[in-house]
Parts: sequence; structure tokens; C-alpha cells
Amino acid sequence: MPRYKLTIEYDGTPYRGWQRQDGFPSVQQALEEAIAEFTRHPVTLFAAGRTDTGVHALGQVAHVDLETEWRPEKIAEASNGLLKLNSHTVAVLACEKVADDFDARFSAKRRHYCYRIVNRPANLTVEAGRAWHVKKPLDVGAMDRAAKVLVGHHDFTTFRSTDCQAKNPQRTLDTLDVRLAADHGAGGRAIEITTSSRAFLHNQVRSMAGSLKLVGEGRWTANDLRSALEAKDRKACGPVAPACGLYFMQVDY
Amino acid sequence: MPRYKLTIEYDGTPYRGWQRQDGFPSVQQALEEAIAEFTRHPVTLFAAGRTDTGVHALGQVAHVDLETEWRPEKIAEASNGLLKLNSHTVAVLACEKVADDFDARFSAKRRHYCYRIVNRPANLTVEAGRAWHVKKPLDVGAMDRAAKVLVGHHDFTTFRSTDCQAKNPQRTLDTLDVRLAADHGAGGRAIEITTSSRAFLHNQVRSMAGSLKLVGEGRWTANDLRSALEAKDRKACGPVAPACGLYFMQVDY
Repeated sequence: MPRYKLTIEYDGTPYRGWQRQDGFPSVQQALEEAIAEFTRHPVTLFAAGRTDTGVHALGQVAHVDLETEWRPEKIAEASNGLLKLNSHTVAVLACEKVADDFDARFSAKRRHYCYRIVNRPANLTVEAGRAWHVKKPLDVGAMDRAAKVLVGHHDFTTFRSTDCQAKNPQRTLDTLDVRLAADHGAGGRAIEITTSSRAFLHNQVRSMAGSLKLVGEGRWTANDLRSALEAKDRKACGPVAPACGLYFMQVDY
Repeated sequence: MPRYKLTIEYDGTPYRGWQRQDGFPSVQQALEEAIAEFTRHPVTLFAAGRTDTGVHALGQVAHVDLETEWRPEKIAEASNGLLKLNSHTVAVLACEKVADDFDARFSAKRRHYCYRIVNRPANLTVEAGRAWHVKKPLDVGAMDRAAKVLVGHHDFTTFRSTDCQAKNPQRTLDTLDVRLAADHGAGGRAIEITTSSRAFLHNQVRSMAGSLKLVGEGRWTANDLRSALEAKDRKACGPVAPACGLYFMQVDY
């Protein structure tokens, strides 16, 4: 059976995350149903990362096996047509045929996430549901310096959900940077927390973003962040940042 | 009566434009009602530009006279609280007290607009309603070069709505640039058409954007654009670009 790699974008707002769940809309189900409709056989998608409820993706990757050969562009086009017809906020950005041993999850060498904060007193309008709204001014420099505490190989027990099913809480964080984003009008500042790693734990990026916000507010120092990491205790984590600010950006293979 | 200048952001999607209209929601009404509620007297807003149905603003400006003195920050805060409470996609970014002779419309020296295109085959997801989706690849360089035909002092009859009520169809366009926007994930290209002028005619930016798209597709040359301008005939204009891609960015005083 020919295998295809799909690069997928979605607005996660209407979905109970990537993964299929009985009784709730999921990105996986939306896309599987679209592909099944034009291939006329059931399909199963395997994703690089199972994003949570409300999390967005600009570059999720999944693979799928089809019963017959299709032109990759045709797969993208037909999927997009059916997704749009059914009012899904999911799109296939790219499709290519890959070798049988390509696995969207296990072949991934590096995953990239971006967490977006709009930092201003005024309500969000065009960015509502697209970023975390933080009213008090954050110290971006302090956040970026503190972030370096988390870079490298660590036990991230503090920064993973108690529901996380990974056996090993150790991960190697390659990058964790906090930057002002390019200006976007009179509406004040957007802050982007970007991070990359071979793999992340469940809720890791939102847990780190929530704790970095405490640093930005001046409520935590970089040392407090270090203590939280070293505690290896979920209770030491700052409040988890909301899903709407998180974007799964890219997967390297 | 003290006069205040408000800088306003909105997602224009739910509104029948800026201006109050019987039986339809408008940005003006949403904000006037919020201000009237906390000042406890009716108010009238005067805006720098009356945006159309579905057009967004990141830096609209309006002035308002209040019966008593208020701290400007309090005006912004109270407005935002009430706008949010009533689920409006409108926010007051800034407020300052101004001289009695300040007029948001007539004191404006320059207005800035941005027209946003996402140029890719795949459906829009996180940018749905925030940009014009153009599937065929556009030649950004050709669009930018052709745009220069429209810069300067011209009769813009071709590029204004037949409903435009301005007596004089002549305007001086200071800038009209077409650029690739900063990368935004694997999702292909975003193109931004930015323009500034002391004043614009009704539908002028969307008319120019629609015609520049024809240049980007290779269906029009820069000379065709010049001929359209020189025709001074609304029928010579390309199809008007949709409202969802247009942002009123800034007003200089």
C-alpha cells in the first residue's frame, strides 16, 4: 500500500484535539473522513504529535496508507475540497509519497512549537482565540534569559501533565526563546515563545509558557524557574497557559 | 465639554461597517453604547474613516465629547470591559484627552491601510476571515512594479465605488507597495499591499487590490493598470477585492 505524508494546518478551536474521540469532533476524524470519501475506503492517520483541545497547527505532519496510488496533489486538493464543504477549519498544505518505513511520529527528528502572547490591556479582537491575552506588561528579556534554564537534557516532571503517558519524563530541549514578534499595528506587543525538541511531554510547552509568564510578571526569578525544574514535582509548575496560544509549527525528519 | 481621541481595533466580521445603521450591528453603535453606559449620557463618535461591512481595523481613530472629565485610561478600561461583556469584537487600544479643535476625520494628515492576501492552494484555517484567499501563485514583483502607476496625484474614478459620495475623485496616493509578509509556517505565502494617502475614496483600496491581483496573475500588465486609471471609468476596474482582507492600520495627525 502506498504511503503518503501530509502537512496539515488547523484552527484547533472547534476540535477536541487531534485524536479521534467518541462523540467529539477531532481533527483526525475530520481529515480521515475527507480522505475516506474520495478514496472510497476507510483510512487511519498517524500524526507527529497529538495536539490537545483548542491547540492550533501550522505544520502538523501525518502519514496515511492508501489502497491505490494517487497523485499527491490530487490527495491535497480532494481533501481540501471536502474539508471546506463540511466547514472544517483544517487544510492539507502539502502531500508527498514517502517510503513504507516513513512514520510521521517515530521518524520525527525534531518538533517545533510556538506559543503566542498578546501583551496589552485591551481585549483581543482579530487575535481572539489565536493568542493568550496577558494584560500586565511582561519583561521579555527576563523571560528569555530564564528560559535558558530549561534548555538541555532534564527531567521535566514539573512541566508535564499528570495525565502524561510517557514512561520517561526526561527530554532534551534544543531551544527555548522568548522574543517580541514583528509589530502588528497600534495594538501593542505580541510575544512569541518558540521551542524545539525531538519530542515533548504532554502539556510541556503550555506548562513552560505558563511558568515563563510568572517570570515576565516579576513574580518568579530565573532561579525560581530552576527550583521548579529541579523539584520534579507537578505542583511546582506555574499555571498552565491556555490552549489558544499554542501552535504546532513544524516537524523535521 | 472635554474631547477624547480613541484608537480602536476591531474584527469587522460581525458588523455592517463602522457607521450606525438602523437594524444592523455597527462598530460605532457598539462603542457608543459602551461609552454611554459608563458615562450615563448619550455620546456620538466621529471616526477618521468609515470602514465597510467586514473590514477590520488595527488603528481606527475616533473622537468623542463627554459631559465631564474622565481619566483617559479609565475611558479605555471601562469601554473594554463593557465591550467584552457584550461579546463585541471591538477594543479601545488607547485614549487621550485632546484639544477642542481636534477632529478625527478632518485633522487627519495621512491614513494607512493594509490589504492581506494568503496565496496558496489550501483553504485558510487560522486566517479564515482575516485575509483574501487567492489560490493561483501571484507575481509579487510584478504587482509591486505596477502599483507605482497609481502612486501620485490622479483622478481615481476607476477605483472608487459608484456609491462614493466624495465630490472630487482626485486623490494623492503617497505609497502603494506590494510585499511578501514574514513567513508564517509551512502554509505558504502571505502578501501585503500597504498604502497611504491623506484620504481615500470609497472602496479605493479594495478596488486597487483587486486590479493588482489581475497583474499578479499575469492577466494585466502595468500598462493595463495605467489604461484602467486613465479611463476614469468604474467599468475599467478589476473585480473589487473582498472586505475580509482589508485592515485600517493607522492615522497620522
